[in-house]
Amino acid sequence: MVDFKKNGGLVPVIVQDADTNEVLMLAYMNEEALKLTQETGFAHYFSRSRNKLWKKGESSGHTQEVKDILIDCDNDTILLKVKQNGVACHTGRKSCFFTKLDTNEIILDKEKEIEYNFIDELYHTL
Amino acid sequence: MVDFKKNGGLVPVIVQDADTNEVLMLAYMNEEALKLTQETGFAHYFSRSRNKLWKKGESSGHTQEVKDILIDCDNDTILLKVKQNGVACHTGRKSCFFTKLDTNEIILDKEKEIEYNFIDELYHTL
Repeated sequence: MVDFKKNGGLVPVIVQDADTNEVLMLAYMNEEALKLTQETGFAHYFSRSRNKLWKKGESSGHTQEVKDILIDCDNDTILLKVKQNGVACHTGRKSCFFTKLDTNEIILDKEKEIEYNFIDELYHTL
Repeated sequence: MVDFKKNGGLVPVIVQDADTNEVLMLAYMNEEALKLTQETGFAHYFSRSRNKLWKKGESSGHTQEVKDILIDCDNDTILLKVKQNGVACHTGRKSCFFTKLDTNEIILDKEKEIEYNFIDELYHTL
């Protein structure tokens, strides 16, 4: 069972490419988002700033097909293994983790040109 | 620059094995924990419940040598790539993500017998 109480009804979700093990992004789920994810097989998250559920890739088509859902040893963090259709990041890169902290070096190229409006609105309101 | 303001001075840190890309755990850093991590080359975190800094593996020897630090596209989540000495999880498993959510199946074996007291105290007070 997931402990949704510890963090105000939300749990952090680490999203990982099921084939390559690349970490794609971190998002949050509430109980309903988790239920929708389990029922539909596609990742759904909860936007903290917009205070609403969203299906990843609903507008852009860059959806995430769920391959496995793991829970950590104290039941407050989810590891979601997915098949990423397209890219996870609103910048058009496969992963949101493309910047080295110490040097600001960018280590991933853009794969897609993404219209800023819709994806940005969805992702950046996490 | 890391945005420490969004989440009350803390950022979630995804800890990943630098060689295998296995996700090991999720922890939290405040600004001081990040600074210590960068200065020493060993992962330091902030315990939310004990309200204090700790060096991962300080008592147990199961330290994490930092290989790379990445920041995500909106600067509020860190991906820490490490060489894990011993195991990351207080249960003696390499990773804290060893339980399938749907079935409760355990997918990782214990590698170490760990004394419950010290590691548990450190980790479970995250």
